[in-house]
Amino acid sequence: MESSAVTSASARVVTTPAEMHRVADEIRAAGLTIGFVPTMGYLHDGHLQLLRKARELADVVILSIFVNPTQFSANEDLGAYPRDFERDKALAEAEGTQIIYNPSPESMYPEGFQTQVNLPGMTNVLCGVSRPHHFPGVAQVCAKLFNAVKPHFAVFGLKDFQQYLVVTQMVKDLDMDLKVVGIPIVREKDGLAMSSRNVYMTPAEREQAVVLNQSIKLAEKAVAEGERDAARLLDLVRGHIATAPAADIDYVEIRSIPGLATVEGRIEKPVLLAMAVKFGKARLLDNTVLLREQPNANV
Amino acid sequence: MESSAVTSASARVVTTPAEMHRVADEIRAAGLTIGFVPTMGYLHDGHLQLLRKARELADVVILSIFVNPTQFSANEDLGAYPRDFERDKALAEAEGTQIIYNPSPESMYPEGFQTQVNLPGMTNVLCGVSRPHHFPGVAQVCAKLFNAVKPHFAVFGLKDFQQYLVVTQMVKDLDMDLKVVGIPIVREKDGLAMSSRNVYMTPAEREQAVVLNQSIKLAEKAVAEGERDAARLLDLVRGHIATAPAADIDYVEIRSIPGLATVEGRIEKPVLLAMAVKFGKARLLDNTVLLREQPNANV
Repeated sequence: MESSAVTSASARVVTTPAEMHRVADEIRAAGLTIGFVPTMGYLHDGHLQLLRKARELADVVILSIFVNPTQFSANEDLGAYPRDFERDKALAEAEGTQIIYNPSPESMYPEGFQTQVNLPGMTNVLCGVSRPHHFPGVAQVCAKLFNAVKPHFAVFGLKDFQQYLVVTQMVKDLDMDLKVVGIPIVREKDGLAMSSRNVYMTPAEREQAVVLNQSIKLAEKAVAEGERDAARLLDLVRGHIATAPAADIDYVEIRSIPGLATVEGRIEKPVLLAMAVKFGKARLLDNTVLLREQPNANV
Repeated sequence: MESSAVTSASARVVTTPAEMHRVADEIRAAGLTIGFVPTMGYLHDGHLQLLRKARELADVVILSIFVNPTQFSANEDLGAYPRDFERDKALAEAEGTQIIYNPSPESMYPEGFQTQVNLPGMTNVLCGVSRPHHFPGVAQVCAKLFNAVKPHFAVFGLKDFQQYLVVTQMVKDLDMDLKVVGIPIVREKDGLAMSSRNVYMTPAEREQAVVLNQSIKLAEKAVAEGERDAARLLDLVRGHIATAPAADIDYVEIRSIPGLATVEGRIEKPVLLAMAVKFGKARLLDNTVLLREQPNANV
Protein backbone atom coordinates (compact mmCIF):
# COMPACT_ATOMS: atom_id res chain seq x y z
CA MET A 1 0.00 0.00 0.00
CA GLU A 2 1.33 3.38 -0.96
CA SER A 3 -0.22 5.43 1.83
CA SER A 4 2.41 6.23 4.43
CA ALA A 5 -0.26 5.97 7.14
CA VAL A 6 -0.21 2.21 6.86
CA THR A 7 3.49 1.78 7.47
CA SER A 8 4.07 4.48 10.09
CA ALA A 9 3.55 4.02 13.80
CA SER A 10 0.76 6.60 13.84
CA ALA A 11 -2.58 5.08 12.93
CA ARG A 12 -4.82 6.74 10.35
CA VAL A 13 -8.21 7.62 11.82
CA VAL A 14 -11.17 7.11 9.47
CA THR A 15 -14.50 8.61 10.49
CA THR A 16 -17.09 7.83 7.81
CA PRO A 17 -18.27 4.70 5.96
CA ALA A 18 -17.49 6.32 2.59
CA GLU A 19 -13.89 7.10 3.58
CA MET A 20 -13.53 3.60 5.02
CA HIS A 21 -14.62 2.12 1.66
CA ARG A 22 -11.90 4.07 -0.15
CA VAL A 23 -9.20 3.09 2.34
CA ALA A 24 -10.24 -0.59 2.23
CA ASP A 25 -10.23 -0.56 -1.58
CA GLU A 26 -6.76 0.99 -1.59
CA ILE A 27 -5.44 -1.79 0.67
CA ARG A 28 -7.10 -4.55 -1.35
CA ALA A 29 -5.96 -3.04 -4.67
CA ALA A 30 -2.40 -3.30 -3.35
CA GLY A 31 -2.94 -7.04 -2.86
CA LEU A 32 -2.84 -6.79 0.93
CA THR A 33 -5.14 -8.55 3.40
CA ILE A 34 -7.15 -6.83 6.14
CA GLY A 35 -7.48 -8.12 9.70
CA PHE A 36 -10.29 -6.40 11.56
CA VAL A 37 -10.99 -6.04 15.29
CA PRO A 38 -14.37 -4.42 16.04
CA THR A 39 -14.60 -2.97 19.56
CA MET A 40 -16.48 -0.43 21.64
CA GLY A 41 -13.12 0.96 22.81
CA TYR A 42 -11.70 1.30 26.32
CA LEU A 43 -9.21 -1.36 25.34
CA HIS A 44 -7.89 -3.94 27.79
CA ASP A 45 -5.41 -6.76 27.35
CA GLY A 46 -8.13 -8.95 25.88
CA HIS A 47 -8.57 -6.49 23.01
CA LEU A 48 -4.80 -6.30 22.54
CA GLN A 49 -4.73 -10.07 22.09
CA LEU A 50 -7.30 -9.66 19.33
CA LEU A 51 -5.12 -7.03 17.64
CA ARG A 52 -2.10 -9.35 17.90
CA LYS A 53 -4.09 -12.15 16.29
CA ALA A 54 -5.26 -9.81 13.50
CA ARG A 55 -1.66 -8.77 12.88
CA GLU A 56 -0.62 -12.42 12.73
CA LEU A 57 -3.37 -13.21 10.19
CA ALA A 58 -3.28 -10.18 7.90
CA ASP A 59 -1.10 -7.48 6.36
CA VAL A 60 -3.06 -4.50 7.61
CA VAL A 61 -4.82 -4.28 10.98
CA ILE A 62 -7.96 -2.15 11.28
CA LEU A 63 -9.48 -1.49 14.69
CA SER A 64 -12.95 -0.03 14.98
CA ILE A 65 -13.98 1.91 18.05
CA PHE A 66 -17.70 2.55 18.09
CA VAL A 67 -20.01 2.43 21.10
CA ASN A 68 -22.99 1.15 19.15
CA PRO A 69 -26.24 2.61 20.49
CA THR A 70 -28.49 0.00 18.85
CA GLN A 71 -27.14 -2.83 21.02
CA PHE A 72 -28.08 -1.04 24.24
CA SER A 73 -31.59 -0.86 25.68
CA ALA A 74 -32.90 2.39 27.15
CA ASN A 75 -32.18 1.21 30.71
CA GLU A 76 -28.61 0.10 29.96
CA ASP A 77 -25.20 1.77 30.28
CA LEU A 78 -24.80 3.46 26.87
CA GLY A 79 -24.14 6.91 28.37
CA ALA A 80 -21.92 5.54 31.13
CA TYR A 81 -19.91 3.19 28.89
CA PRO A 82 -16.23 4.06 29.48
CA ARG A 83 -14.48 5.95 26.67
CA ASP A 84 -10.87 7.12 26.18
CA PHE A 85 -10.03 7.49 22.50
CA GLU A 86 -6.48 8.84 22.85
CA ARG A 87 -5.48 6.06 25.23
CA ASP A 88 -7.07 3.45 22.93
CA LYS A 89 -5.28 4.91 19.91
CA ALA A 90 -1.89 4.76 21.63
CA LEU A 91 -2.47 1.18 22.81
CA ALA A 92 -3.59 0.10 19.33
CA GLU A 93 -0.61 1.80 17.65
CA ALA A 94 1.73 -0.01 20.00
CA GLU A 95 0.25 -3.27 18.67
CA GLY A 96 0.91 -2.25 15.06
CA THR A 97 -2.64 -1.14 14.22
CA GLN A 98 -2.48 0.94 11.04
CA ILE A 99 -6.06 2.18 10.78
CA ILE A 100 -8.67 3.11 13.37
CA TYR A 101 -12.26 3.32 12.15
CA ASN A 102 -14.07 5.65 14.54
CA PRO A 103 -17.36 6.69 12.94
CA SER A 104 -19.85 9.02 14.62
CA PRO A 105 -23.29 7.73 15.63
CA GLU A 106 -24.73 10.26 13.14
CA SER A 107 -22.77 8.79 10.22
CA MET A 108 -23.76 5.26 11.26
CA TYR A 109 -27.47 5.86 11.94
CA PRO A 110 -28.57 8.95 10.02
CA GLU A 111 -32.18 10.10 9.98
CA GLY A 112 -34.39 7.72 8.02
CA PHE A 113 -32.31 4.65 8.96
CA GLN A 114 -34.46 1.52 8.57
CA THR A 115 -32.56 -1.74 8.21
CA GLN A 116 -32.76 -4.40 10.90
CA VAL A 117 -30.68 -7.59 10.91
CA ASN A 118 -31.71 -10.45 13.15
CA LEU A 119 -31.14 -14.16 13.80
CA PRO A 120 -34.20 -14.83 15.95
CA GLY A 121 -33.33 -18.37 17.05
CA MET A 122 -29.91 -17.35 18.36
CA THR A 123 -30.47 -13.80 19.57
CA ASN A 124 -33.36 -14.40 21.98
CA VAL A 125 -31.64 -16.93 24.28
CA LEU A 126 -28.95 -16.60 26.98
CA CYS A 127 -28.00 -12.88 27.10
CA GLY A 128 -30.83 -12.20 24.64
CA VAL A 129 -33.47 -12.91 27.29
CA SER A 130 -32.60 -9.96 29.52
CA ARG A 131 -31.14 -7.93 26.61
CA PRO A 132 -33.59 -8.39 23.71
CA HIS A 133 -32.08 -5.53 21.66
CA HIS A 134 -28.49 -6.59 22.16
CA PHE A 135 -27.73 -9.20 19.50
CA PRO A 136 -29.95 -7.72 16.79
CA GLY A 137 -27.93 -4.52 17.40
CA VAL A 138 -24.65 -6.45 17.30
CA ALA A 139 -25.61 -8.22 14.06
CA GLN A 140 -26.70 -4.91 12.51
CA VAL A 141 -23.54 -3.02 13.44
CA CYS A 142 -21.26 -5.91 12.45
CA ALA A 143 -22.94 -6.07 9.03
CA LYS A 144 -22.28 -2.33 8.66
CA LEU A 145 -18.69 -2.55 9.92
CA PHE A 146 -17.83 -5.53 7.72
CA ASN A 147 -19.29 -3.80 4.66
CA ALA A 148 -17.32 -0.64 5.44
CA VAL A 149 -13.98 -2.25 6.38
CA LYS A 150 -14.06 -5.13 3.85
CA PRO A 151 -11.87 -7.37 6.01
CA HIS A 152 -10.46 -10.80 5.18
CA PHE A 153 -10.53 -11.72 8.89
CA ALA A 154 -12.60 -10.38 11.77
CA VAL A 155 -11.34 -11.30 15.22
CA PHE A 156 -13.66 -11.66 18.22
CA GLY A 157 -13.05 -12.63 21.83
CA LEU A 158 -14.81 -15.76 23.02
CA LYS A 159 -15.80 -14.16 26.33
CA ASP A 160 -18.99 -13.36 24.48
CA PHE A 161 -19.37 -16.77 22.91
CA GLN A 162 -22.96 -16.08 21.88
CA GLN A 163 -21.82 -12.98 19.98
CA TYR A 164 -19.15 -15.06 18.24
CA LEU A 165 -21.75 -17.63 17.18
CA VAL A 166 -24.28 -14.99 16.06
CA VAL A 167 -21.72 -13.10 13.99
CA THR A 168 -20.31 -16.30 12.48
CA GLN A 169 -23.81 -17.42 11.48
CA MET A 170 -24.65 -14.01 9.98
CA VAL A 171 -21.46 -13.97 7.91
CA LYS A 172 -22.23 -17.45 6.61
CA ASP A 173 -25.92 -16.73 5.94
CA LEU A 174 -25.34 -13.42 4.15
CA ASP A 175 -22.47 -14.80 2.04
CA MET A 176 -20.05 -12.25 3.43
CA ASP A 177 -16.55 -12.98 2.15
CA LEU A 178 -14.59 -12.97 5.40
CA LYS A 179 -13.52 -15.39 8.11
CA VAL A 180 -14.62 -14.86 11.70
CA VAL A 181 -11.89 -15.91 14.12
CA GLY A 182 -12.49 -16.52 17.84
CA ILE A 183 -9.82 -15.97 20.51
CA PRO A 184 -9.92 -17.67 23.95
CA ILE A 185 -10.90 -15.55 26.94
CA VAL A 186 -8.08 -13.44 28.38
CA ARG A 187 -8.15 -13.42 32.19
CA GLU A 188 -6.79 -11.38 35.07
CA LYS A 189 -4.29 -13.17 37.34
CA ASP A 190 -7.06 -14.38 39.64
CA GLY A 191 -9.04 -15.76 36.70
CA LEU A 192 -11.63 -13.02 36.18
CA ALA A 193 -12.37 -12.60 32.46
CA MET A 194 -11.19 -9.20 31.23
CA SER A 195 -13.98 -6.75 30.43
CA SER A 196 -14.33 -3.01 30.00
CA ARG A 197 -17.19 -3.29 32.47
CA ASN A 198 -15.00 -4.65 35.29
CA VAL A 199 -14.31 -1.02 36.28
CA TYR A 200 -17.94 -0.74 37.42
CA MET A 201 -17.27 -3.02 40.45
CA THR A 202 -16.41 -1.97 44.00
CA PRO A 203 -13.26 -3.60 45.45
CA ALA A 204 -15.44 -6.03 47.45
CA GLU A 205 -17.46 -7.04 44.37
CA ARG A 206 -14.29 -7.37 42.32
CA GLU A 207 -12.86 -9.78 44.90
CA GLN A 208 -15.98 -11.97 44.87
CA ALA A 209 -16.27 -11.99 41.06
CA VAL A 210 -13.57 -14.66 40.91
CA VAL A 211 -16.27 -17.26 41.69
CA LEU A 212 -17.28 -17.24 38.02
CA ASN A 213 -14.02 -18.68 36.75
CA GLN A 214 -13.79 -20.94 39.81
CA SER A 215 -17.21 -22.38 39.04
CA ILE A 216 -16.15 -23.05 35.45
CA LYS A 217 -13.08 -24.89 36.65
CA LEU A 218 -15.25 -26.99 38.97
CA ALA A 219 -17.48 -27.95 36.03
CA GLU A 220 -14.49 -28.77 33.83
CA LYS A 221 -13.03 -30.91 36.60
CA ALA A 222 -16.32 -32.75 37.10
CA VAL A 223 -16.55 -33.47 33.37
CA ALA A 224 -12.93 -34.66 33.32
CA GLU A 225 -13.88 -37.05 36.15
CA GLY A 226 -16.78 -38.44 34.14
CA GLU A 227 -19.82 -36.31 35.06
CA ARG A 228 -22.14 -35.99 32.02
CA ASP A 229 -25.43 -34.89 33.57
CA ALA A 230 -26.27 -31.32 32.53
CA ALA A 231 -28.51 -30.63 35.51
CA ARG A 232 -25.92 -31.77 38.07
CA LEU A 233 -23.22 -29.69 36.34
CA LEU A 234 -25.46 -26.62 36.43
CA ASP A 235 -26.23 -27.22 40.14
CA LEU A 236 -22.51 -27.41 40.84
CA VAL A 237 -21.82 -24.12 39.05
CA ARG A 238 -24.80 -22.25 40.51
CA GLY A 239 -24.00 -23.55 43.99
CA HIS A 240 -20.47 -22.20 43.86
CA ILE A 241 -21.52 -18.80 42.46
CA ALA A 242 -24.06 -18.52 45.30
CA THR A 243 -21.20 -18.57 47.82
CA ALA A 244 -20.47 -14.95 46.76
CA PRO A 245 -22.95 -12.69 48.58
CA ALA A 246 -22.71 -9.97 45.89
CA ALA A 247 -23.48 -12.38 43.02
CA ASP A 248 -26.87 -12.02 41.35
CA ILE A 249 -27.26 -14.72 38.70
CA ASP A 250 -28.89 -13.65 35.43
CA TYR A 251 -28.44 -17.10 33.88
CA VAL A 252 -26.24 -20.18 33.99
CA GLU A 253 -27.00 -22.50 31.08
CA ILE A 254 -25.68 -25.33 28.95
CA ARG A 255 -26.46 -24.91 25.23
CA SER A 256 -25.59 -26.64 21.95
CA ILE A 257 -22.94 -25.35 19.52
CA PRO A 258 -23.49 -23.64 17.09
CA GLY A 259 -27.30 -23.47 17.26
CA LEU A 260 -27.61 -22.60 20.99
CA ALA A 261 -30.44 -25.11 21.50
CA THR A 262 -31.23 -26.23 25.05
CA VAL A 263 -29.33 -29.29 26.28
CA GLU A 264 -31.02 -31.57 28.77
CA GLY A 265 -29.96 -34.86 30.33
CA ARG A 266 -26.63 -36.29 29.32
CA ILE A 267 -24.04 -34.25 27.39
CA GLU A 268 -22.47 -36.26 24.59
CA LYS A 269 -20.51 -33.76 22.50
CA PRO A 270 -18.99 -30.28 22.95
CA VAL A 271 -21.50 -27.91 24.59
CA LEU A 272 -21.37 -24.33 25.79
CA LEU A 273 -21.53 -23.64 29.54
CA ALA A 274 -22.34 -19.92 29.69
CA MET A 275 -23.22 -17.53 32.49
CA ALA A 276 -24.11 -13.90 33.11
CA VAL A 277 -23.91 -12.75 36.71
CA LYS A 278 -24.36 -9.27 38.16
CA PHE A 279 -21.95 -7.89 40.74
CA GLY A 280 -23.31 -4.48 41.70
CA LYS A 281 -23.41 -2.33 38.55
CA ALA A 282 -21.37 -4.82 36.50
CA ARG A 283 -23.02 -7.62 34.54
CA LEU A 284 -20.22 -10.11 33.91
CA LEU A 285 -20.00 -12.91 31.37
CA ASP A 286 -17.99 -16.09 31.45
CA ASN A 287 -18.12 -19.41 29.62
CA THR A 288 -16.32 -22.53 28.58
CA VAL A 289 -16.83 -25.32 26.10
CA LEU A 290 -17.34 -28.58 28.00
CA LEU A 291 -16.24 -31.85 26.37
CA ARG A 292 -14.05 -29.86 24.00
CA GLU A 293 -11.76 -32.21 22.10
CA GLN A 294 -8.67 -30.04 22.41
CA PRO A 295 -8.68 -27.99 25.62
CA ASN A 296 -7.72 -24.34 25.11
CA ALA A 297 -7.78 -24.62 21.32
CA ASN A 298 -9.28 -21.81 19.31
CA VAL A 299 -12.79 -22.42 18.11
CA MET B 1 -9.17 -9.76 -16.65
CA GLU B 2 -7.18 -12.79 -17.73
CA SER B 3 -9.98 -15.34 -17.63
CA SER B 4 -11.13 -16.03 -21.15
CA ALA B 5 -14.68 -16.51 -19.88
CA VAL B 6 -15.02 -12.80 -19.42
CA THR B 7 -14.10 -11.81 -22.95
CA SER B 8 -15.75 -14.61 -24.91
CA ALA B 9 -19.37 -14.62 -26.04
CA SER B 10 -20.16 -17.61 -23.84
CA ALA B 11 -21.00 -16.58 -20.29
CA ARG B 12 -19.36 -18.30 -17.36
CA VAL B 13 -21.93 -19.89 -15.06
CA VAL B 14 -21.16 -19.63 -11.33
CA THR B 15 -23.21 -21.76 -8.96
CA THR B 16 -22.02 -21.13 -5.38
CA PRO B 17 -21.38 -18.07 -3.21
CA ALA B 18 -17.75 -19.17 -2.60
CA GLU B 19 -17.00 -19.44 -6.33
CA MET B 20 -18.74 -16.10 -6.92
CA HIS B 21 -16.43 -14.48 -4.32
CA ARG B 22 -13.35 -15.75 -6.16
CA VAL B 23 -14.62 -14.61 -9.56
CA ALA B 24 -15.57 -11.16 -8.21
CA ASP B 25 -12.15 -10.79 -6.55
CA GLU B 26 -10.45 -11.72 -9.81
CA ILE B 27 -12.37 -9.02 -11.69
CA ARG B 28 -11.72 -6.39 -9.03
CA ALA B 29 -8.04 -7.31 -8.76
CA ALA B 30 -7.77 -6.61 -12.49
CA GLY B 31 -9.05 -3.10 -11.83
CA LEU B 32 -12.36 -3.72 -13.60
CA THR B 33 -15.81 -2.64 -12.43
CA ILE B 34 -18.81 -4.93 -12.01
CA GLY B 35 -22.35 -4.10 -13.14
CA PHE B 36 -24.90 -6.46 -11.61
CA VAL B 37 -28.45 -7.33 -12.65
CA PRO B 38 -30.27 -9.55 -10.13
CA THR B 39 -33.26 -11.38 -11.60
CA MET B 40 -35.48 -14.40 -11.11
CA GLY B 41 -34.89 -15.33 -14.76
CA TYR B 42 -37.39 -15.80 -17.61
CA LEU B 43 -35.92 -12.68 -19.13
CA HIS B 44 -37.99 -10.18 -21.09
CA ASP B 45 -37.04 -6.94 -22.84
CA GLY B 46 -37.20 -5.10 -19.52
CA HIS B 47 -34.41 -7.28 -18.14
CA LEU B 48 -32.40 -6.80 -21.33
CA GLN B 49 -32.59 -3.04 -20.79
CA LEU B 50 -31.13 -3.58 -17.33
CA LEU B 51 -28.28 -5.61 -18.83
CA ARG B 52 -27.64 -2.87 -21.40
CA LYS B 53 -27.48 -0.29 -18.63
CA ALA B 54 -25.09 -2.48 -16.60
CA ARG B 55 -22.87 -2.83 -19.65
CA GLU B 56 -22.91 0.93 -20.15
CA LEU B 57 -21.92 1.52 -16.50
CA ALA B 58 -19.33 -1.19 -15.89
CA ASP B 59 -16.59 -3.31 -17.46
CA VAL B 60 -18.03 -6.70 -16.55
CA VAL B 61 -21.74 -7.57 -16.46
CA ILE B 62 -22.96 -10.20 -14.03
CA LEU B 63 -26.54 -11.45 -14.22
CA SER B 64 -28.00 -13.50 -11.40
CA ILE B 65 -30.85 -15.91 -12.01
CA PHE B 66 -32.33 -17.15 -8.76
CA VAL B 67 -36.00 -17.74 -8.02
CA ASN B 68 -35.71 -16.76 -4.36
CA PRO B 69 -38.02 -18.88 -2.19
CA THR B 70 -37.94 -16.51 0.80
CA GLN B 71 -39.78 -13.74 -1.05
CA PHE B 72 -42.76 -15.98 -1.80
CA SER B 73 -45.47 -16.89 0.68
CA ALA B 74 -46.81 -20.44 0.86
CA ASN B 75 -49.88 -19.51 -1.20
CA GLU B 76 -47.90 -17.77 -3.96
CA ASP B 77 -46.50 -18.88 -7.31
CA LEU B 78 -43.00 -20.12 -6.36
CA GLY B 79 -43.50 -23.55 -7.95
CA ALA B 80 -45.26 -22.13 -11.01
CA TYR B 81 -42.81 -19.27 -11.59
CA PRO B 82 -41.66 -19.58 -15.23
CA ARG B 83 -38.10 -20.86 -15.77
CA ASP B 84 -35.96 -21.35 -18.89
CA PHE B 85 -32.26 -21.19 -18.08
CA GLU B 86 -30.87 -21.95 -21.54
CA ARG B 87 -33.03 -19.31 -23.19
CA ASP B 88 -32.07 -16.79 -20.50
CA LYS B 89 -28.38 -17.58 -20.94
CA ALA B 90 -28.53 -17.07 -24.70
CA LEU B 91 -30.41 -13.77 -24.31
CA ALA B 92 -27.96 -12.54 -21.69
CA GLU B 93 -24.94 -13.52 -23.78
CA ALA B 94 -26.37 -11.61 -26.73
CA GLU B 95 -26.33 -8.53 -24.48
CA GLY B 96 -22.66 -9.05 -23.59
CA THR B 97 -23.21 -10.61 -20.17
CA GLN B 98 -19.95 -12.29 -19.14
CA ILE B 99 -21.02 -14.08 -15.97
CA ILE B 100 -24.27 -15.70 -14.85
CA TYR B 101 -24.63 -16.37 -11.14
CA ASN B 102 -27.13 -19.21 -10.80
CA PRO B 103 -26.90 -20.61 -7.27
CA SER B 104 -29.04 -23.49 -6.02
CA PRO B 105 -31.59 -22.90 -3.24
CA GLU B 106 -29.54 -25.35 -1.12
CA SER B 107 -26.37 -23.27 -1.45
CA MET B 108 -28.30 -20.08 -0.65
CA TYR B 109 -30.35 -21.35 2.30
CA PRO B 110 -28.58 -24.38 3.80
CA GLU B 111 -29.88 -26.10 6.92
CA GLY B 112 -29.44 -23.93 10.00
CA PHE B 113 -29.92 -20.68 8.05
CA GLN B 114 -30.97 -17.93 10.48
CA THR B 115 -30.41 -14.38 9.28
CA GLN B 116 -33.35 -12.08 8.58
CA VAL B 117 -33.01 -8.61 7.03
CA ASN B 118 -35.92 -6.21 7.27
CA LEU B 119 -36.86 -2.55 6.86
CA PRO B 120 -40.17 -2.62 8.72
CA GLY B 121 -41.39 0.88 7.83
CA MET B 122 -40.95 0.32 4.09
CA THR B 123 -41.69 -3.39 3.70
CA ASN B 124 -45.15 -3.52 5.29
CA VAL B 125 -46.90 -0.99 3.02
CA LEU B 126 -48.15 -1.16 -0.61
CA CYS B 127 -47.24 -4.66 -1.89
CA GLY B 128 -46.10 -5.55 1.64
CA VAL B 129 -49.70 -5.56 2.92
CA SER B 130 -50.83 -8.54 0.86
CA ARG B 131 -47.30 -9.99 0.60
CA PRO B 132 -45.80 -9.63 4.10
CA HIS B 133 -42.85 -11.96 3.36
CA HIS B 134 -41.97 -10.39 0.04
CA PHE B 135 -39.72 -7.42 0.80
CA PRO B 136 -37.97 -8.97 3.81
CA GLY B 137 -37.14 -11.84 1.41
CA VAL B 138 -36.01 -9.39 -1.28
CA ALA B 139 -33.80 -7.48 1.19
CA GLN B 140 -32.34 -10.74 2.48
CA VAL B 141 -31.53 -12.16 -0.94
CA CYS B 142 -30.17 -8.86 -2.25
CA ALA B 143 -27.84 -8.62 0.77
CA LYS B 144 -26.62 -12.13 -0.06
CA LEU B 145 -26.29 -11.46 -3.79
CA PHE B 146 -24.46 -8.16 -3.27
CA ASN B 147 -22.05 -9.78 -0.82
CA ALA B 148 -21.40 -12.63 -3.25
CA VAL B 149 -21.12 -10.60 -6.48
CA LYS B 150 -19.36 -7.51 -5.00
CA PRO B 151 -20.75 -5.18 -7.68
CA HIS B 152 -19.98 -1.50 -8.22
CA PHE B 153 -23.48 -1.00 -9.67
CA ALA B 154 -26.70 -2.96 -9.22
CA VAL B 155 -29.41 -2.22 -11.77
CA PHE B 156 -33.12 -2.56 -10.96
CA GLY B 157 -36.25 -1.89 -12.97
CA LEU B 158 -38.57 0.76 -11.59
CA LYS B 159 -41.67 -1.31 -12.32
CA ASP B 160 -41.21 -2.44 -8.74
CA PHE B 161 -40.54 1.01 -7.37
CA GLN B 162 -41.00 -0.17 -3.79
CA GLN B 163 -38.30 -2.80 -4.31
CA TYR B 164 -35.98 -0.14 -5.70
CA LEU B 165 -36.55 2.06 -2.65
CA VAL B 166 -36.17 -0.83 -0.16
CA VAL B 167 -32.92 -2.05 -1.76
CA THR B 168 -31.52 1.48 -2.03
CA GLN B 169 -32.27 2.11 1.65
CA MET B 170 -30.72 -1.21 2.71
CA VAL B 171 -27.54 -0.51 0.75
CA LYS B 172 -27.28 2.91 2.38
CA ASP B 173 -28.10 1.66 5.89
CA LEU B 174 -25.72 -1.31 5.81
CA ASP B 175 -22.86 0.75 4.31
CA MET B 176 -22.66 -1.49 1.27
CA ASP B 177 -20.19 -0.07 -1.23
CA LEU B 178 -22.27 -0.07 -4.38
CA LYS B 179 -24.64 2.18 -6.28
CA VAL B 180 -28.23 1.10 -6.92
CA VAL B 181 -29.43 2.33 -10.31
CA GLY B 182 -33.10 2.44 -11.32
CA ILE B 183 -34.27 2.07 -14.93
CA PRO B 184 -37.66 3.35 -16.17
CA ILE B 185 -40.41 0.82 -16.82
CA VAL B 186 -40.17 -0.92 -20.18
CA ARG B 187 -43.61 -1.35 -21.80
CA GLU B 188 -45.27 -3.41 -24.48
CA LYS B 189 -46.55 -1.48 -27.53
CA ASP B 190 -49.96 -1.00 -25.92
CA GLY B 191 -48.40 0.34 -22.71
CA LEU B 192 -48.54 -2.75 -20.44
CA ALA B 193 -45.47 -2.89 -18.22
CA MET B 194 -43.30 -5.90 -19.10
CA SER B 195 -43.36 -8.70 -16.52
CA SER B 196 -42.51 -12.39 -16.41
CA ARG B 197 -45.97 -12.83 -14.91
CA ASN B 198 -47.79 -11.41 -17.96
CA VAL B 199 -47.79 -14.96 -19.38
CA TYR B 200 -50.28 -15.95 -16.67
CA MET B 201 -53.07 -13.93 -18.34
CA THR B 202 -55.73 -15.16 -20.77
CA PRO B 203 -55.97 -13.17 -24.03
CA ALA B 204 -59.06 -11.35 -22.70
CA GLU B 205 -57.32 -10.40 -19.46
CA ARG B 206 -54.23 -9.34 -21.37
CA GLU B 207 -56.33 -7.00 -23.49
CA GLN B 208 -57.95 -5.36 -20.47
CA ALA B 209 -54.66 -5.00 -18.56
CA VAL B 210 -53.86 -1.93 -20.62
CA VAL B 211 -56.11 0.07 -18.28
CA LEU B 212 -53.23 0.28 -15.78
CA ASN B 213 -51.00 2.36 -17.99
CA GLN B 214 -54.00 4.30 -19.29
CA SER B 215 -54.98 5.22 -15.74
CA ILE B 216 -51.43 6.41 -15.05
CA LYS B 217 -51.52 8.60 -18.14
CA LEU B 218 -54.84 10.05 -16.99
CA ALA B 219 -53.31 10.94 -13.61
CA GLU B 220 -50.23 12.46 -15.23
CA LYS B 221 -52.44 14.52 -17.54
CA ALA B 222 -54.56 15.71 -14.62
CA VAL B 223 -51.44 16.78 -12.70
CA ALA B 224 -50.11 18.54 -15.80
CA GLU B 225 -53.42 20.43 -15.94
CA GLY B 226 -53.05 21.52 -12.33
CA GLU B 227 -54.78 18.83 -10.24
CA ARG B 228 -52.97 18.45 -6.87
CA ASP B 229 -55.56 16.68 -4.71
CA ALA B 230 -54.39 13.14 -3.87
CA ALA B 231 -57.89 11.78 -3.23
CA ARG B 232 -59.27 13.08 -6.54
CA LEU B 233 -56.27 11.67 -8.43
CA LEU B 234 -56.79 8.27 -6.81
CA ASP B 235 -60.51 8.35 -7.67
CA LEU B 236 -59.63 9.09 -11.28
CA VAL B 237 -57.19 6.15 -11.44
CA ARG B 238 -59.44 3.68 -9.63
CA GLY B 239 -62.41 4.71 -11.73
CA HIS B 240 -60.59 4.01 -14.95
CA ILE B 241 -59.24 0.64 -13.77
CA ALA B 242 -62.80 -0.34 -12.78
CA THR B 243 -63.87 -0.08 -16.43
CA ALA B 244 -62.01 -3.39 -16.99
CA PRO B 245 -64.30 -6.21 -15.80
CA ALA B 246 -61.34 -8.56 -15.12
CA ALA B 247 -59.50 -6.03 -12.94
CA ASP B 248 -59.36 -6.81 -9.21
CA ILE B 249 -57.59 -3.92 -7.43
CA ASP B 250 -55.18 -4.90 -4.66
CA TYR B 251 -54.17 -1.29 -4.03
CA VAL B 252 -53.85 2.08 -5.72
CA GLU B 253 -51.96 4.53 -3.51
CA ILE B 254 -49.98 7.73 -3.46
CA ARG B 255 -46.90 7.58 -1.19
CA SER B 256 -43.89 9.76 -0.36
CA ILE B 257 -40.40 9.19 -1.81
CA PRO B 258 -38.17 7.68 -0.42
CA GLY B 259 -39.89 6.86 2.89
CA LEU B 260 -43.21 5.57 1.45
CA ALA B 261 -45.26 7.51 4.02
CA THR B 262 -48.94 8.11 3.30
CA VAL B 263 -49.74 11.30 1.37
CA GLU B 264 -53.06 13.00 2.04
CA GLY B 265 -54.55 16.23 0.76
CA ARG B 266 -52.49 18.30 -1.64
CA ILE B 267 -49.36 16.90 -3.32
CA GLU B 268 -46.54 19.44 -3.31
CA LYS B 269 -43.43 17.53 -4.41
CA PRO B 270 -42.63 14.31 -6.31
CA VAL B 271 -44.75 11.41 -5.03
CA LEU B 272 -45.18 7.79 -6.05
CA LEU B 273 -48.48 6.70 -7.61
CA ALA B 274 -48.35 2.91 -7.35
CA MET B 275 -50.81 0.13 -8.02
CA ALA B 276 -51.15 -3.63 -7.88
CA VAL B 277 -54.10 -5.11 -9.76
CA LYS B 278 -55.01 -8.73 -10.35
CA PHE B 279 -56.09 -9.95 -13.77
CA GLY B 280 -56.96 -13.62 -13.32
CA LYS B 281 -53.83 -15.42 -12.09
CA ALA B 282 -51.54 -12.44 -12.76
CA ARG B 283 -50.97 -9.75 -10.14
CA LEU B 284 -49.63 -6.78 -12.11
CA LEU B 285 -47.72 -3.75 -10.90
CA ASP B 286 -47.47 -0.31 -12.39
CA ASN B 287 -46.44 3.10 -11.13
CA THR B 288 -45.27 6.58 -11.96
CA VAL B 289 -43.73 9.49 -10.13
CA LEU B 290 -46.17 12.39 -10.16
CA LEU B 291 -44.79 15.95 -10.08
CA ARG B 292 -41.45 14.61 -11.23
CA GLU B 293 -39.17 17.49 -12.18
CA GLN B 294 -37.82 15.81 -15.32
CA PRO B 295 -40.35 13.47 -16.91
CA ASN B 296 -38.91 10.09 -17.93
CA ALA B 297 -35.57 10.76 -16.21
CA ASN B 298 -33.91 7.98 -14.30
CA VAL B 299 -34.42 8.12 -10.55
